[in-house]
Amino acid sequence: MTPDEFRTHGKQVVDWIADYLEGVESLPVRSQVAPGDVRRALPEHPPEQGEDFAAVMADLDRIVVPGLTHWQHPSFFAYYPANTSGPAILGDLLSSGLGVQGMLWATSPACTELETVVVDWLAELFGLPEHFRTDRAGGGVIQDSASSATLLAILAALQRTSDGAAAVGGLTGRHTLYVSTETHSSVAKSARIAGIGADNVRVVDVDPKALAMDVTVLDRMIAEDVAAGAVPVLVCATVGTTSTAAVDPVRAVGEVCRRHGVWLHVDAAYAGVAAVCPELRWLNDGVAEYVDSYATNPHKWLLTNFDCTVMWVADRAPLVGALAIHPEYLRNAATSSGAVVDFRDWQVSLGRRFRALKLWAVLRWYGAEGLRAHIRAGLAQAAELVSWVAADESFELHEPQTLGLVCFRPRWPGSPVEEADAATLRLMESLNASGDLYLTHTKVGGRVVLRMALGGTRTESRHVRAAWDAIRAAAV
Amino acid sequence: MTPDEFRTHGKQVVDWIADYLEGVESLPVRSQVAPGDVRRALPEHPPEQGEDFAAVMADLDRIVVPGLTHWQHPSFFAYYPANTSGPAILGDLLSSGLGVQGMLWATSPACTELETVVVDWLAELFGLPEHFRTDRAGGGVIQDSASSATLLAILAALQRTSDGAAAVGGLTGRHTLYVSTETHSSVAKSARIAGIGADNVRVVDVDPKALAMDVTVLDRMIAEDVAAGAVPVLVCATVGTTSTAAVDPVRAVGEVCRRHGVWLHVDAAYAGVAAVCPELRWLNDGVAEYVDSYATNPHKWLLTNFDCTVMWVADRAPLVGALAIHPEYLRNAATSSGAVVDFRDWQVSLGRRFRALKLWAVLRWYGAEGLRAHIRAGLAQAAELVSWVAADESFELHEPQTLGLVCFRPRWPGSPVEEADAATLRLMESLNASGDLYLTHTKVGGRVVLRMALGGTRTESRHVRAAWDAIRAAAV
Repeated sequence: MTPDEFRTHGKQVVDWIADYLEGVESLPVRSQVAPGDVRRALPEHPPEQGEDFAAVMADLDRIVVPGLTHWQHPSFFAYYPANTSGPAILGDLLSSGLGVQGMLWATSPACTELETVVVDWLAELFGLPEHFRTDRAGGGVIQDSASSATLLAILAALQRTSDGAAAVGGLTGRHTLYVSTETHSSVAKSARIAGIGADNVRVVDVDPKALAMDVTVLDRMIAEDVAAGAVPVLVCATVGTTSTAAVDPVRAVGEVCRRHGVWLHVDAAYAGVAAVCPELRWLNDGVAEYVDSYATNPHKWLLTNFDCTVMWVADRAPLVGALAIHPEYLRNAATSSGAVVDFRDWQVSLGRRFRALKLWAVLRWYGAEGLRAHIRAGLAQAAELVSWVAADESFELHEPQTLGLVCFRPRWPGSPVEEADAATLRLMESLNASGDLYLTHTKVGGRVVLRMALGGTRTESRHVRAAWDAIRAAAV
Repeated sequence: MTPDEFRTHGKQVVDWIADYLEGVESLPVRSQVAPGDVRRALPEHPPEQGEDFAAVMADLDRIVVPGLTHWQHPSFFAYYPANTSGPAILGDLLSSGLGVQGMLWATSPACTELETVVVDWLAELFGLPEHFRTDRAGGGVIQDSASSATLLAILAALQRTSDGAAAVGGLTGRHTLYVSTETHSSVAKSARIAGIGADNVRVVDVDPKALAMDVTVLDRMIAEDVAAGAVPVLVCATVGTTSTAAVDPVRAVGEVCRRHGVWLHVDAAYAGVAAVCPELRWLNDGVAEYVDSYATNPHKWLLTNFDCTVMWVADRAPLVGALAIHPEYLRNAATSSGAVVDFRDWQVSLGRRFRALKLWAVLRWYGAEGLRAHIRAGLAQAAELVSWVAADESFELHEPQTLGLVCFRPRWPGSPVEEADAATLRLMESLNASGDLYLTHTKVGGRVVLRMALGGTRTESRHVRAAWDAIRAAAV
């Protein structure tokens, strides 16, 4: 494709995206295709000759769009938001157009240095401790996902606890990780990946109301494991769980970790970015004093396209020590000088995209004020929904309700528990099948509850109201 | 950013990229900044108020571009090419604009199904076996990088060899991986990540001329390790090594693997895509009969932006078995039916971008014919360079020269080995510092050699000639 063809088709694609985002509200939120529909609509064999770009765009409209669930739809309330925004899309476009590799500082210095700047900016905006900064002992890095950040935290913790022996000689003996019943499944997945094993992920009870990790149980469990000869490696505390946005008591967990010499990782994938608002800095309580690694996802609630998880470490040495390898074909003067950061040693992969551009574009276009306004809009929508749910006797609100996530269930008076839960799932399925809105469920205390996550880029109060009206109408 | 603002700025960015790609030849290939230059040019604190997009674009020109090493420069011959192309950039742009998540089939069916189609198309184009297809026992998946594919292959192999015990209970006892001296460092990195340990990566000698794995040594080493109580997990054979594009004898390695019941992974990151040309199908010899997993990078030599590694497995069960976890908040009817593929179980992360779009756009825009023409252009440039090097008595060509990579060194007659090697490195540094071209080095048989990788999207014969003239002029 020549540069002039690129100009032509590129502008068509930009218009297509603008049209899509303007019109997405008219599409069913959840795709209505059945398994195999999209595949059957596509040719069995690849084209022998090249085709015009118009043919691709036509099939995009005809085959791909009907097969999509529209995460940017204003009535998408499922999972957590996956906010995109104009500046993020354009930052990503610049990254694709430049096509540089950021594996080493030397392979494109600005790719590394701009990243160190934007992650330091974010640390400042979130009120994270100074020692997380790239120009201190710690540092931040963009990962593809919070799952990868969890895995890397475990590897760094193993490096520290084994004094480097694990990376060289492999794991010997039993190693344990600590989560709560509410922790994201990525810790169990990481335990499988890191050779620790899913069975060595120790599950700590939570307070049945707040769904926050019980530190007394944690403390006892670690002590028992040590007595039994295991090596406790890492505790994962969550700030904003996937199910209900529950918040673990990071400070109290940190005191236990310090006593036992265990690495503390905070998974703040969803909620961490909310700390851009000073009134929500309580989310970081204990982080400065106790936390070894911390991850949050601008690609959820901070207007930045997936993939963009920012991970910080209090000390970069164990992370880099766990992963650094120096083959001849990557040797270069800058690396040898020790004066630069090579981000390949901070991640699973070698190659890496210039993801800092999208975060830079978002931070500059919106400014701190704009980001705060976005978070507060989601909180206001959640507060409005909470007021409606609380005022309706047919529904039970899950409390404490936290940030932009609202969990509730119809009471189904007179129905036995199992029937009520089945009715809630049927209610959800019928709403989702309508295409008018999309929400997901979880279980709290064994009961099915509906989750509605606010904070979408295009979600307005009227969409929340319409969703609530539809839910009420279906629940009677 | 409103849709209309997005239209305006989006078209500015499209023009900026077209201008960049048209003009990149006039920029120094390797960035000329020193460590810290880019960071110092950027504000210490994030902006409080939002800024105009023009301010971002101005700083892109003023600060970021001078800090880049231009991988799309026609005189970039370092590492391996990281081909971008117009359709790939636009496919990625569509992915960013749609902002859907492909972690589950249910979270956006087309994101999963289009991916199964394009990886099956690629398997057909490369002449890979039928059982790699998604509609058979195996299947293909887009990963971010060949490093991740290597890690996942190891996890699948551990799952098979331990009958699932490793993922559940963790690693016990000594597990071994097998590479050659020429294998990419990602196997050692994966050994660290998977808990196997870098010391348990067994390094098999290579034939000193072809730099291909010596299967007799491999066979003996596995037998010795088994006798010593270790569990051999995986052999990584390489088709196109990073240093010299050497090719391991996959068929012979496969026979050894079958005899010992060891998983065979093929890392064809660089060279695999060349099999789009029927005359290069010899690259796949033995793959159909013996290979358990296989990875190649359209993001290197097949006109598709990073990140786009395609990984296939002959049997998906051990891969999915190693990674699948089913928390309540991800349960859905489609997954429970077993009728769909959920790609979250094929990768480290949970979330995933719609990367199939860029590969789809590339395959349709160029067609098989266009892709073959691109590969053949790189091969022709390499052949031309080889003819010049071979005809020049001041240089020694590394043979066998393979595909688009040409390795050679000045003879420096009369210089002792160490001085000659130092002179070669000085020569490279002076050429790279000039900004006129960029190449990297490796070591072969202990000697420093220069690597020139052909096949860049914008590289023409004249650029190769100019580079060779500059090298010759500097070497006398």
